[in-house]
Amino acid sequence: MSLESYMNEVGQKARAASRLLTRATTEQKNNALFAMADALEDARPRLKEENAKDLENGKQKGLDAALLDRLELNDGRIDGMIEGLKQVASLPDPVGEITDMVFRPSGIQLGKMRVPLGVIGIIYESRPNVTIDAASLCLKSGNATILRGGSEAFYSNQAIAEAVQTGLLTAGLPADAVQVINTVDREAVGRLITMPEFVDVIVPRGGKGLIERISADARVPVIKHLDGNCHVYIDDEADLEKAFKIAMNAKTRRYGVCNAMESLLVNTKVAKAILPCLADALAQKGVELVACEQARDIIEAAPATEEDWYTEYLAPKLSIKLVADMDEAIAHINQYGSHHSDAIVSQNYSKTRAFMAEVDSSSVMVNASTAFADGFEYGLGAEIGISTDKIHARGPVGLIGLTSQKYVVLGDGHTRDN
Amino acid sequence: MSLESYMNEVGQKARAASRLLTRATTEQKNNALFAMADALEDARPRLKEENAKDLENGKQKGLDAALLDRLELNDGRIDGMIEGLKQVASLPDPVGEITDMVFRPSGIQLGKMRVPLGVIGIIYESRPNVTIDAASLCLKSGNATILRGGSEAFYSNQAIAEAVQTGLLTAGLPADAVQVINTVDREAVGRLITMPEFVDVIVPRGGKGLIERISADARVPVIKHLDGNCHVYIDDEADLEKAFKIAMNAKTRRYGVCNAMESLLVNTKVAKAILPCLADALAQKGVELVACEQARDIIEAAPATEEDWYTEYLAPKLSIKLVADMDEAIAHINQYGSHHSDAIVSQNYSKTRAFMAEVDSSSVMVNASTAFADGFEYGLGAEIGISTDKIHARGPVGLIGLTSQKYVVLGDGHTRDN
Repeated sequence: MSLESYMNEVGQKARAASRLLTRATTEQKNNALFAMADALEDARPRLKEENAKDLENGKQKGLDAALLDRLELNDGRIDGMIEGLKQVASLPDPVGEITDMVFRPSGIQLGKMRVPLGVIGIIYESRPNVTIDAASLCLKSGNATILRGGSEAFYSNQAIAEAVQTGLLTAGLPADAVQVINTVDREAVGRLITMPEFVDVIVPRGGKGLIERISADARVPVIKHLDGNCHVYIDDEADLEKAFKIAMNAKTRRYGVCNAMESLLVNTKVAKAILPCLADALAQKGVELVACEQARDIIEAAPATEEDWYTEYLAPKLSIKLVADMDEAIAHINQYGSHHSDAIVSQNYSKTRAFMAEVDSSSVMVNASTAFADGFEYGLGAEIGISTDKIHARGPVGLIGLTSQKYVVLGDGHTRDN
Repeated sequence: MSLESYMNEVGQKARAASRLLTRATTEQKNNALFAMADALEDARPRLKEENAKDLENGKQKGLDAALLDRLELNDGRIDGMIEGLKQVASLPDPVGEITDMVFRPSGIQLGKMRVPLGVIGIIYESRPNVTIDAASLCLKSGNATILRGGSEAFYSNQAIAEAVQTGLLTAGLPADAVQVINTVDREAVGRLITMPEFVDVIVPRGGKGLIERISADARVPVIKHLDGNCHVYIDDEADLEKAFKIAMNAKTRRYGVCNAMESLLVNTKVAKAILPCLADALAQKGVELVACEQARDIIEAAPATEEDWYTEYLAPKLSIKLVADMDEAIAHINQYGSHHSDAIVSQNYSKTRAFMAEVDSSSVMVNASTAFADGFEYGLGAEIGISTDKIHARGPVGLIGLTSQKYVVLGDGHTRDN
């Protein structure tokens, strides 16, 4: 079968399964998630066997140690997938909720019903456990899924897919509700992102390069998470103890995460009071500093370039800039930031209100660390990613971000007069 | 100046204006809308003068009478634009609303704040009053707008733009909050839809051809309304009097509107009871019928082709198909429909629930006419279009559809532990 016929078949099956899923009850979906967990447990030896093939191929191809580590499916990671399935089963089902029900002057009763998006295409790189994360969230929200993992995890992903489909069938749901593409042909991705007749939305999970390529070529909407160039602004009216704690937490809690602070903005009026002790504490943690000229008069740091203000280091490195006032901080964040998560530390009521309204980011923090930008911290239960887009889903995307709403109109023979 | 420099300048100005609009109060925005109304009143003679140039050019180019009619700005239409501005001023301002505020276990307080999308590009065809409709809705929702009207309305649109900008300046808002592109160069559209750095979303208003071209080429999200191939399904458990009224209203209230019924599905069990009188009544209104073979055994109608099931006639024409049960009706609607608005007429409680859940349309009606699918009927006040997409806005798009939500996190020195 040609790649195009194969992808069309996958698409048609997914569309048909998504129609059937609109009838699935919460109980059926939860039963399927539990059955998938059981099937993974039963398949544990086979999962490790298939994963060993991927690891062996990876070694022969000379993949580096970090990549091989991400690829590995050990008992801990299989436990994690099983636990994840049970957690998703415990989340409330968003589908079918009808809200904002009102009577209109015409006599019709109008409301909004939450419904699945339909078919979701997920494109991801090396970690095979993404297969389970993504499939479980999509299933719980009533969507069919087409998954395309990295070629280096091919055997692992196929083995996981088998367990998933066993679980679906056990619960009386269509096996095609979750399909894993069974070819490593790169053209498959090109086709997956350009078939709006079968796929309603694409969620890419991986590096910025992957996401930019997919966004540029996709002919369906993409829920995307580019970079997290997050800022903390310390205002001249900040409580400096809080500012110190928040800045340290936002930078040093973890370095490789998208909600870590990458750039610190300090009001010139308090720079001498806070920067030296902050710089000391950061140096003790091994954080490298680059800074504007004004800041370098106060602390030791390499000069920051224009490029630094745009950079998400994902590393123990921080750029520091002094600003004359909050407006300069907001303008800097909106220009150089990535619209992910940005914080102000200030005791001034009016300034905190203005910062919240004017900073154009998916999460705006007031006197709190950017580290809180996270689906679990926000109570979404689990997240499929953090969207830096403004359209549809913004910020951490959980089950609700994988749904849409339609209008329902209830009448009793109502017709429109004019 | 080259077209590219010009469009970049327009984009930069719009982006800068959108930043300033995040600070505009509801009062300022309403004052601007009233000032625009006054400016239009003052410009009435000039508007007619400039419109006369467009009409004269149109006649020379041989535009047909319908197009010339849509192009004309007479006193009634100028009154309509002024009235429209005042209506938008009277709508509640969605921006800044904070909802779902909760304390999380970590101690942070989390909520969602409604915010403007940013910069909205509107591309439309001949009717110059769209300039005011679109600009007023975008302004009220806090967005900057770049408008690109049809070349045949060039002088009219420029004159309207002057009045709009006068109103903005009178109210102390940036004139660049609403810009009308001042060139008829078609390349301007190509650039407008491919500059995500300046434009957040595109709303095309016009024929299906325009919208499909724009969707195919755009590099920013498009809020689009393709066709309205709407269905009414008459179930075997329908109250046939209600069914008759609803079908007649959905088809004959107005023919050229997107919420008109284009296809009637009738359960075979009641076809003989309802089709003959419906066919008579439709014939009296001059509605042409095409139908499946089974229906043609009962009523006089031309044979329907496969193509008919996909067609939005926007005319006094209707396709009729008999179906064995509700499931066949739902499958037909989901396959051939355009996901706009579809209705069931039935007294059976369980069937109405299943129809609502399974029909994949932006509005699903139960025992009510599809004609209700409309921003005014839904209480949105005014609409910029009816979205047949599932992502972001679905169904009639009013002020809220032109906004997004961001997370706000309030702490008091809160940091994340793990």
